[in-house]
Amino acid sequence: MTIESALQQLKDLQMKLCAFSHATGAIYLDSVTVAPEDTAAGRGETLGVLSKLSYEMFANEEVAKLLAFLRENADKLTRQQAREVEMLQRDYDEISKIPQDEYVQYRKLINDAQSVWHKAKRDNDFASFAPYLEKIVEANRRFAGYFNKNEHPYNVCLNQYEYGLTMEKLDIFFDKLKQTIVPLIRRIQTEAKQIDDSFLHGHYPVEAQRKFSDYLMEVMSIDRKHCGIGETEHPFTIHFNKYDVRITTKYHEDDPTKSMYSVIHEGGHALYELGTADELMYTRLANGTSMGIHESQSRLFENIIGRSESFINLIFPKLQELFPEQLAGVDAHKFYLAVNKSEPSLIRIEADELTYCLHIMVRYEIEKMLMEDKVKVSELPAVWAAKMKEYLGVDVPDDTRGVLQDSHWSGGSIGYFPSYALGSAYSAQIVDRMRQDIDIEATIASGNLRPIVEWLEERIYRFGSMLDPDDVIMNCCGEPFDPTYFTEYLSAKFKAIYDLD
Amino acid sequence: MTIESALQQLKDLQMKLCAFSHATGAIYLDSVTVAPEDTAAGRGETLGVLSKLSYEMFANEEVAKLLAFLRENADKLTRQQAREVEMLQRDYDEISKIPQDEYVQYRKLINDAQSVWHKAKRDNDFASFAPYLEKIVEANRRFAGYFNKNEHPYNVCLNQYEYGLTMEKLDIFFDKLKQTIVPLIRRIQTEAKQIDDSFLHGHYPVEAQRKFSDYLMEVMSIDRKHCGIGETEHPFTIHFNKYDVRITTKYHEDDPTKSMYSVIHEGGHALYELGTADELMYTRLANGTSMGIHESQSRLFENIIGRSESFINLIFPKLQELFPEQLAGVDAHKFYLAVNKSEPSLIRIEADELTYCLHIMVRYEIEKMLMEDKVKVSELPAVWAAKMKEYLGVDVPDDTRGVLQDSHWSGGSIGYFPSYALGSAYSAQIVDRMRQDIDIEATIASGNLRPIVEWLEERIYRFGSMLDPDDVIMNCCGEPFDPTYFTEYLSAKFKAIYDLD
Repeated sequence: MTIESALQQLKDLQMKLCAFSHATGAIYLDSVTVAPEDTAAGRGETLGVLSKLSYEMFANEEVAKLLAFLRENADKLTRQQAREVEMLQRDYDEISKIPQDEYVQYRKLINDAQSVWHKAKRDNDFASFAPYLEKIVEANRRFAGYFNKNEHPYNVCLNQYEYGLTMEKLDIFFDKLKQTIVPLIRRIQTEAKQIDDSFLHGHYPVEAQRKFSDYLMEVMSIDRKHCGIGETEHPFTIHFNKYDVRITTKYHEDDPTKSMYSVIHEGGHALYELGTADELMYTRLANGTSMGIHESQSRLFENIIGRSESFINLIFPKLQELFPEQLAGVDAHKFYLAVNKSEPSLIRIEADELTYCLHIMVRYEIEKMLMEDKVKVSELPAVWAAKMKEYLGVDVPDDTRGVLQDSHWSGGSIGYFPSYALGSAYSAQIVDRMRQDIDIEATIASGNLRPIVEWLEERIYRFGSMLDPDDVIMNCCGEPFDPTYFTEYLSAKFKAIYDLD
Repeated sequence: MTIESALQQLKDLQMKLCAFSHATGAIYLDSVTVAPEDTAAGRGETLGVLSKLSYEMFANEEVAKLLAFLRENADKLTRQQAREVEMLQRDYDEISKIPQDEYVQYRKLINDAQSVWHKAKRDNDFASFAPYLEKIVEANRRFAGYFNKNEHPYNVCLNQYEYGLTMEKLDIFFDKLKQTIVPLIRRIQTEAKQIDDSFLHGHYPVEAQRKFSDYLMEVMSIDRKHCGIGETEHPFTIHFNKYDVRITTKYHEDDPTKSMYSVIHEGGHALYELGTADELMYTRLANGTSMGIHESQSRLFENIIGRSESFINLIFPKLQELFPEQLAGVDAHKFYLAVNKSEPSLIRIEADELTYCLHIMVRYEIEKMLMEDKVKVSELPAVWAAKMKEYLGVDVPDDTRGVLQDSHWSGGSIGYFPSYALGSAYSAQIVDRMRQDIDIEATIASGNLRPIVEWLEERIYRFGSMLDPDDVIMNCCGEPFDPTYFTEYLSAKFKAIYDLD
């Protein structure tokens, strides 16, 4: 093997992996947007074949030898090539340890579990989903053992989504959050004047909301030639390459802010992918580096920018133009207060910025217990209700609004949830650093967020997966991750909103 | 190799081919429905990789040996297995003769040509498309030589879409058509009272037209759990398997019949795929057998049923309900006459049933000349105009409404067009046979076309690609293809409509 032929093989391999990912992504996007109701079976067959082929293409001796050869010749590689090899080796060390039939069976299980979960959620029928979740948990535990039998299985899971993350780090992080959030929530409930957001629950026609989405994407300077918007039950972002990104939203006619913040959130994810460097295209590095860093970008736009008073001042005239009757008598400040109303609630994705992390803690603790086999799947509804009562003080009326509300577990994602909280905390630290270079409020007031996007591109987006999450923060902020930025941001913001000294 | 292992390999191979076809189909569907504008490049890369992989998967020694082994053991195969081998061997004999790099380059050329054609049509800019068309024609000529150098290259092309079809057969067929159609059109233009269809050109809002599409699909007894409807610039039907079929339409607010007949036409294609037998799923046989037979099903519903007086009587009340003002003062008979108005025109897909085949003849003659190298691509606009004048008596004002109007050539399809005319002729013969078993008018009047669909399922659909086109007609009608049914149908229908002796 010459270094030239090895590099060509490296390129071809990554190209193929990208093509398979594009193909399965397109099939997935179709399935959640326009596919007719009873088409899951054929899709499952196709995805089964594709995952088997992509497994065979990657988890084989030849690839092992190729990666070994390139690591031996590390001195002849560019920094990017070395990183490609490093990341592929990480993938290889995991996937090659799963026997092929287990891998294919697991893909099929996930495909089935997702449609079962959809129906179970609709019908408040946890029992129908439980056997699938049991198998998913069992498989994740088994896979964790294959990947690294010396590590706690939940740490192995966390690493899938946030390289370098451990329960130890999370315990400290969540403890610190709790110390700030819990007393603050209590003060808001007992000492503060409640915010009136009743005007958000009028009738807001979908057609005008669609126009508002277009406007928001324009404000965020999202390039529509390379980023589409669709409608799905659960909003998400998917990209086929950096020039082909899609976000989705869901319109609720009884509340325009649901879709508004979905668009801003997913728009943040989209900007990250759109901003990765051209030279990373069709390689293993052509994606945001981790779920936590990805969520930092989505939540930076959704919360720190999107729920700031300057942003509301900017967009409120457009809202008034589109919904003159619904917003009669409302001003920007009233709207700003309404979108920041904090109140313990049942549904994670509808939670306000302050109580949100408590929803994550509930999931984090349950996932830990599941991976340690300290709770049975059948007990989850009761455990869920108990923890929601403990952390948020709310009573869970049914599983649809309880343990069945999120799609993650049905998709095999155990260890994903903490990324959301972590992402929020990252974003506060990133924005704090951004303030040294940019007058953020003035930029927002100007109506064009491009300078903010360009700052993020320069310091975060363009690196794609060149850097691990810790290094992204270090590279961007010049210091390691520190959750204090986030707790201080939350304290200051919500004390001001609720007028608490 | 044992027969069992060979049959397993045969099954696996077809399964993989179906999965690739599903994947590329999903990417295609995305590209024409929701993909953002500037995303063709990344899609081209992915399709390039997938077509290379599927080429490698199929055009190799192992597959050749497998097929040879199974043919040697033909006595141990079921009828279906033998047919699978036969059809795969046909594919193999063609595709394996194209050098892999030429094949991959051609797929890439097609991907590029399609987006160039889109822009060229929009901008009336034939010159920008011409170099692509030259390369496509050249590749088709070269491939025809690879496939069968003893056969006329255009016959090789025709066989891609209609197995067994030759120029000799088509010349006879088109001559016969001309003898009926040309004098009839002349009589309509000179002797008959012109039909008033002005009421079709009011304002028909898209939202109500969408409801009408749903209604039409219900009347046609199309199972919506397995068949979706989307919107694209050019209506088409695609299927991922028999339980996952999609049709598309395009709404024109100035004429509801355009989408109406697109839905009925594509609905006919969809019914064919939805009706193939379960046991053919995931095999080479799980599709309609040819373009001609496929068009016979779409045009049977579009024209023979959809433009019959009984069908208009059935659906007219729904139209009146959806468009009360637009259709004030119009009755079903007037509507029936309007949708059958015959008039030479510029655009094939808008042509009436009678003049339609003349549009095909123009394309047929040009394709023959292209494949025989008797015309240069650069001369096509002039040749097109001359032939349109000769056959239809119309002046072509620009290439957008001339040689650039159809997508077929940009997609590499040379030899496809005759299938449309042939399909129309097949459908007349099929319906004539159907009358022996079913009172068609009474069935339509009942409001449920299911008995007609079931008759077609039993005699045509369920066979998928088990039978070649000639055998489909023989099996369904008990006699070989005879265009007289079509010419007699046209004569009788249009003489009645235009009150000619």
